Amino acid sequence: MKGVFITFEGPDGAGKTTQLNLLANHLQQEGYKVLCTREPGGTPLAEDIRRILLSPWEEEIYGLTEVFLYAASRVQHVKKKILPALAEGKVVLCDRFTDSTLAYQGYGRGIELELLHRLNDLATGGLKPAVTLLLDLPPEEGLRRGKKGGGGTRMDRLEQEDLTFHYRVRQGFLALARQEPRRIKIIDARQPVEKVFAEVLAAVSPWLWRANFE
Amino acid sequence: MKGVFITFEGPDGAGKTTQLNLLANHLQQEGYKVLCTREPGGTPLAEDIRRILLSPWEEEIYGLTEVFLYAASRVQHVKKKILPALAEGKVVLCDRFTDSTLAYQGYGRGIELELLHRLNDLATGGLKPAVTLLLDLPPEEGLRRGKKGGGGTRMDRLEQEDLTFHYRVRQGFLALARQEPRRIKIIDARQPVEKVFAEVLAAVSPWLWRANFE
Repeated sequence: MKGVFITFEGPDGAGKTTQLNLLANHLQQEGYKVLCTREPGGTPLAEDIRRILLSPWEEEIYGLTEVFLYAASRVQHVKKKILPALAEGKVVLCDRFTDSTLAYQGYGRGIELELLHRLNDLATGGLKPAVTLLLDLPPEEGLRRGKKGGGGTRMDRLEQEDLTFHYRVRQGFLALARQEPRRIKIIDARQPVEKVFAEVLAAVSPWLWRANFE
Repeated sequence: MKGVFITFEGPDGAGKTTQLNLLANHLQQEGYKVLCTREPGGTPLAEDIRRILLSPWEEEIYGLTEVFLYAASRVQHVKKKILPALAEGKVVLCDRFTDSTLAYQGYGRGIELELLHRLNDLATGGLKPAVTLLLDLPPEEGLRRGKKGGGGTRMDRLEQEDLTFHYRVRQGFLALARQEPRRIKIIDARQPVEKVFAEVLAAVSPWLWRANFE
């Protein structure tokens, strides 16, 4: 496999998008070919599924429904966008991926982790990130930042969940990082942006030899 | 479990909607409480997923994506609409259900049947129809009827598949009927509407004692 697949994980408000954009600019200036993408989404069909997932519905959305919708969008995203970019030797930067499914639907909502692992494997065809940057933040801090609307985001459905849910999600992310310490790098997102970025860069640098230059 | 859950399966053009409506009218005249519904769909969110599934996309839709989208819509449909109606003692008539997933995605597209059984069980929470009416039709006949547009339907994406796909789907439905002969009743859909309806009525009658009257 050519290319390098890098994912950003953590709660909303942790600065994933900011760091992803900083890294993309940096890598492009160094001459790497970069693809920036996000989940759920990444293709027209997957973005349509994203709209369903993030819309406020009068109808209750069950945890399993979410799981299946994320899996559906991931199949399209991986096959149509991520794998072709990796085959071209690109650095693929993805805002959220399979770890979010495990943290939010598994640890957060209590859906069986083994089932989620199986669905993740099916949806990705076994593709794993080389490095995952976990921007860790206490839930209160993430929600406070989210509410300021710095990123132009309104409170979507997932952000409206109660705080205990977000505690479980954070513990989930940290548990995943303990299980795969070589892949998942925990970064304290309360640090200044430049400090966080320095840690991001240090974590991804060992992998960049696999990527092609423009 | 009160109520009776009855599903209609078979290819497009076999007359499922016609027979479902005939049965609904007949049962309502006899005083039963009836709910007519369909898959994919049945709730606002599930109907939105239906729109994604049946729209023509420039982007190729993978078999697994379809499977996950059907499963997502089914979770909402079963929990929000079918189970509450059965709890009220209604006769629930559903146009397509889990057997379509097995026939189209499994036998038709070659996705592993065991996986589809597992996803069906997850999505339905184990709910099974009391009776399934399989309106059987040779693929050429179904496609010919579909093209006449008698039901007001245009050729959607699934109908545009090649004929060998539809042969595999038919063989799949018949294989399912052989596996569960007590649940799945094969009815020759080439017969006149009244003759088909007589067989439908004969198949469902033994179950109606479970349903409530208005």
